[in-house]
Amino acid sequence: MTGKLFVIGTGPGNPEQMTPQTRAAVREATDFYGYGPYLDRLDLRSDQRKQVSDNREELDRASAALRAAATGATVCVVSGGDPGVFAMAAAICEAVDDGPDEWRTIDLTVLPGITAMLAVAARVGAPLGHDFCAISLSDNLKPWNIIENRLELAARAGFVIALYNPISKARPWQLGKAFELLRTLLPATTPVIFGRAAGRHDEKITVQRLADANVANADMATCVIIGSPETKIVARDGRPDLVYTPRFIAGGKN
Amino acid sequence: MTGKLFVIGTGPGNPEQMTPQTRAAVREATDFYGYGPYLDRLDLRSDQRKQVSDNREELDRASAALRAAATGATVCVVSGGDPGVFAMAAAICEAVDDGPDEWRTIDLTVLPGITAMLAVAARVGAPLGHDFCAISLSDNLKPWNIIENRLELAARAGFVIALYNPISKARPWQLGKAFELLRTLLPATTPVIFGRAAGRHDEKITVQRLADANVANADMATCVIIGSPETKIVARDGRPDLVYTPRFIAGGKN
Repeated sequence: MTGKLFVIGTGPGNPEQMTPQTRAAVREATDFYGYGPYLDRLDLRSDQRKQVSDNREELDRASAALRAAATGATVCVVSGGDPGVFAMAAAICEAVDDGPDEWRTIDLTVLPGITAMLAVAARVGAPLGHDFCAISLSDNLKPWNIIENRLELAARAGFVIALYNPISKARPWQLGKAFELLRTLLPATTPVIFGRAAGRHDEKITVQRLADANVANADMATCVIIGSPETKIVARDGRPDLVYTPRFIAGGKN
Repeated sequence: MTGKLFVIGTGPGNPEQMTPQTRAAVREATDFYGYGPYLDRLDLRSDQRKQVSDNREELDRASAALRAAATGATVCVVSGGDPGVFAMAAAICEAVDDGPDEWRTIDLTVLPGITAMLAVAARVGAPLGHDFCAISLSDNLKPWNIIENRLELAARAGFVIALYNPISKARPWQLGKAFELLRTLLPATTPVIFGRAAGRHDEKITVQRLADANVANADMATCVIIGSPETKIVARDGRPDLVYTPRFIAGGKN
């Protein structure tokens, strides 16, 4: 007997940013797998079971969820943000790829969510209004030299750069190194946005220039957006600055 | 008297993917500005007014919306997807930047939405599971040589590449040129996903290999996702293939 597996994202934490489609999956599921703080964002009934696991045990969690679904349960794997961006959807696919054949027959549904960079961008204007990239700064899952190479090529390409997993207790120096590298490639005045808990009551958004960007503004729950040379800051009397990247670069057909 | 301006995104078109926060803004607003097909996704009351404009008149639309908000109206500017990704939030910021001082005092709120690449990625698994970029293929707003340079650097960086605005009647050859260039830089077997109307009833998702990727699968409403050399396809009996990009690259600390 084969059950059902939803992979969902709660968005950055404001319940009003979780889609109705995701809410319906939460109502339907019986068994929930995820990192505790993400599971705590759901308003579960007493008949719904939670399997809490640590943030770094993604593959074990994925396998446990697939095993439960394979025996007939309706399972919900919970990420923060969007489940497809540096989150559980890839771990589930990896587990299916390497797992028993029967896991390939499970009814698997991934539901999109609001990923951190979109929520942070919205709070300051439109820094992602032109071409951009998203890079995880965690060197747990890839070597640091690949990350540096990607930062350099992204800056040379003129992409706005959204950094996920910028800093943690185990990875204290990576963000500072990234700023150091980018200061050699981008104008000193390039806007840098530190967006923590965007859209939540404990939100903290800080805008600085690259020359002065201070890593102390970032923690595990922060998404850092570094502008391109085109990105602009608009001062507003009595309101926070707007930060945006224009839609055009001179030389297009219009 | 100064009104209020919301900039919202409907998501890719499935009403169940529009956030409660965005729905609340739609209920509150009195005047709506946008491209007709996006406005048609909203279930407006008879007392709510629509100002329909063409898809290419973004800056005029932004100015008209700001003028209305400056006179006290509660205005809603409507994009498809997320308003901050190749959409109206940047046009609004540009108009504020260049407009009269009073526009800077308007109560402006941008609300994030599900952008096309996230909805398309969810339908096939997790192709955006690792570092990625988003590039608009429209050379109306930037010169084609910048687009080619970005495609090349993105491929060299190992980014998964999401292409927005891949093709239109006025821009028939750009996507084919992009595939040609990427075929010189990426493995022939690289997965390419054509995602049209993801999550809607008229959804069409096609997965091909880069060597055989056919531009005829794309139209104006399509988001094209091109894998990195790490992106994998998992065949499943009786179910569509999964496409995902693993979270890790060998050589990380874990």
